[in-house]
Amino acid sequence: MPATDFSPAAHPVSVFGLGMMGSALAAALLKAGHPTTVWNRTVAKTGPLVAQGATPAETPAAGVAASPLVIACLTTNDNVRELFAPLAAELRGRTLVNLTNGTPSQARELAAWAQEHGIAYIDGGIMAVPQMIAGPGAYILYSGDEAAYATHRETLAALADTKWVGTDAGLAALWDLALLTGMYGMGIGVAQAYALIGSAGVPAKDFAPLLTDWVIAMTQGIVPGTAEAIDSGQHLTDVSSLEVNQAAVPNLATTFAEHGVRDLLFGAMQPLLDRAVAEGYGADGLSRLVDLLKTP
Amino acid sequence: MPATDFSPAAHPVSVFGLGMMGSALAAALLKAGHPTTVWNRTVAKTGPLVAQGATPAETPAAGVAASPLVIACLTTNDNVRELFAPLAAELRGRTLVNLTNGTPSQARELAAWAQEHGIAYIDGGIMAVPQMIAGPGAYILYSGDEAAYATHRETLAALADTKWVGTDAGLAALWDLALLTGMYGMGIGVAQAYALIGSAGVPAKDFAPLLTDWVIAMTQGIVPGTAEAIDSGQHLTDVSSLEVNQAAVPNLATTFAEHGVRDLLFGAMQPLLDRAVAEGYGADGLSRLVDLLKTP
Ligand SMILES: NC(=O)c1ccc[n+]([C@@H]2O[C@H](COP(=O)([O-])OP(=O)(O)OC[C@H]3O[C@@H](n4cnc5c(N)ncnc54)[C@H](OP(=O)(O)O)[C@@H]3O)[C@@H](O)[C@H]2O)c1
Ligand SMILES: NC(=O)c1ccc[n+]([C@@H]2O[C@H](COP(=O)([O-])OP(=O)(O)OC[C@H]3O[C@@H](n4cnc5c(N)ncnc54)[C@H](OP(=O)(O)O)[C@@H]3O)[C@@H](O)[C@H]2O)c1
Repeated sequence: MPATDFSPAAHPVSVFGLGMMGSALAAALLKAGHPTTVWNRTVAKTGPLVAQGATPAETPAAGVAASPLVIACLTTNDNVRELFAPLAAELRGRTLVNLTNGTPSQARELAAWAQEHGIAYIDGGIMAVPQMIAGPGAYILYSGDEAAYATHRETLAALADTKWVGTDAGLAALWDLALLTGMYGMGIGVAQAYALIGSAGVPAKDFAPLLTDWVIAMTQGIVPGTAEAIDSGQHLTDVSSLEVNQAAVPNLATTFAEHGVRDLLFGAMQPLLDRAVAEGYGADGLSRLVDLLKTP
Repeated sequence: MPATDFSPAAHPVSVFGLGMMGSALAAALLKAGHPTTVWNRTVAKTGPLVAQGATPAETPAAGVAASPLVIACLTTNDNVRELFAPLAAELRGRTLVNLTNGTPSQARELAAWAQEHGIAYIDGGIMAVPQMIAGPGAYILYSGDEAAYATHRETLAALADTKWVGTDAGLAALWDLALLTGMYGMGIGVAQAYALIGSAGVPAKDFAPLLTDWVIAMTQGIVPGTAEAIDSGQHLTDVSSLEVNQAAVPNLATTFAEHGVRDLLFGAMQPLLDRAVAEGYGADGLSRLVDLLKTP
């Protein structure tokens, strides 16, 4: 069937979990024209989706029975296991796409459980906030059962761009968590930055444009530059040496202490920088830290 | 004197410290047409600048005597104090612009010392890497002696855009360190992200474009959004709750442990998230953490 013949009406989907993200996913499927069945533990949250055209499932089993493609977006994979373990028989022959945040190991365990029960399992990592779903820039990483992915890719494309990362079911979670790590580092840095500048009475809005531009400019320089250094093994820098950073970090730690703001970053960075310089890497750039993080 | 009459040739500058950054600063001044005297502890580093037209100072005292405007860019403020303390008499009546990374307290101490000796003191924070100096996007934060700043602003503009933050000499360092905090958070997150994805054999270059785009997209959302939440005191979110983040962070910590990669972020974040949820802020966004960082 060529892509142009794809008819969303012929591809029903069931969505389990109507939190902020699951609701956005279900809404996107409805908007794209997929018959969409929804289930949520707290029934009240089905209301807005039903108003948009979704069919509420009376029970989880009925929700599974309604569609060949079942999408789950719960808080944790423990929730996923708990919900679907009793439904293995109903899921047989169907595809379960799990978009719950989890670890590679959890994804592999779920894939093994699914295989045991004749369920096609695809794990996914959503690289978007709910407001970005079905909009520009959003994508979802997928790994696991490649045949099932091929069958359902066009349906999944209604949620966000699709990015296949491999048949090892754990890979989507790995890429997802690695990307989230970059985001959480930025987020903690930004939170500490606002706390510090706020401790001196500067309104956040006066500081925000500078902080946005600065972090973006540094990301544009550091992220590709670090990749080149890692892949080439050439860490010498003409930008900013570990030695200069080692000298600057105590200024940060001291200033947080003097301003009574908690520091989650610099106390932890200092020993790593000290070790890098002690091991003779003082003239290298920050990319050298990637290697050091991989060795105990 | 109207701006159009500004003649760089009539505004000599002395630059102390020809490391990566100091060399870029001196080169920018030369390029703009300022008579530039340079001094560096390790004499060999004056060579490239002299080749570009700089005058080498035989001694620090001669370097100070050569210009009404003295710019210092050394590793630490201890180096600055050590170098200039014996030169207080020579510096009298001149302006010292200190672009060395330091703390607000250090800047205030240096300003007090300068005032005692009749030296105009300006502290600065360079928001650029050396390669960005005199190029688009680079700027330098300044604070301290406002009259001296007015006198020398046009000369300083040869280095990068100028941003005055106040007469408290410590303010440039405060803004600088707060911006650096955002950068270091991002940098540590990115380093851990590369270490994690690398531990699974994914080449950094395959991961880099996704990481760059993701961190930039999240920065564009989180940094302004957090400022609004802070200034309004309204932390409830429809994007991503602390409760969902509290559930996701153990996945990150576990995965780093399973992959044998050191984690500087998540072990430290977890207690803060736990505390936020325990105190009833589970439905708030990450902006709530800014408040919690300010309270013990
Ligand atoms: N929000 C984001 O920006 C974002 C981005 C990417 C990925 N994610 C991931 O997407 C997942 C959902 O996030 P969210 O923001 O939608 O969270 P949320 O708004 O807190 O929703 C959580 C959902 O999980 C359900 N749930 C929790 N425990 C359950 C259980 N024991 N049995 C059945 N259902 C249960 C909740 O049901 P009730 O309504 O009954 O509580 C709700 O539907 C998480 O894994 C998150 O990490 C979120
Ligand atoms: N590189 C960046 O991206 C960047 C960005 C913003 C701000 N900064 C700040 O700019 C400052 C300089 O950084 P950089 O990258 O140029 O570092 P660098 O390349 O390591 O240069 C350090 C400079 O300080 C001098 N120095 C060190 N100890 C000294 C002492 N006891 N007496 C006299 N001179 C001494 C060095 O002289 P020798 O040549 O004799 O060793 C050299 O000129 C730092 O405070 C840094 O935080 C750097």
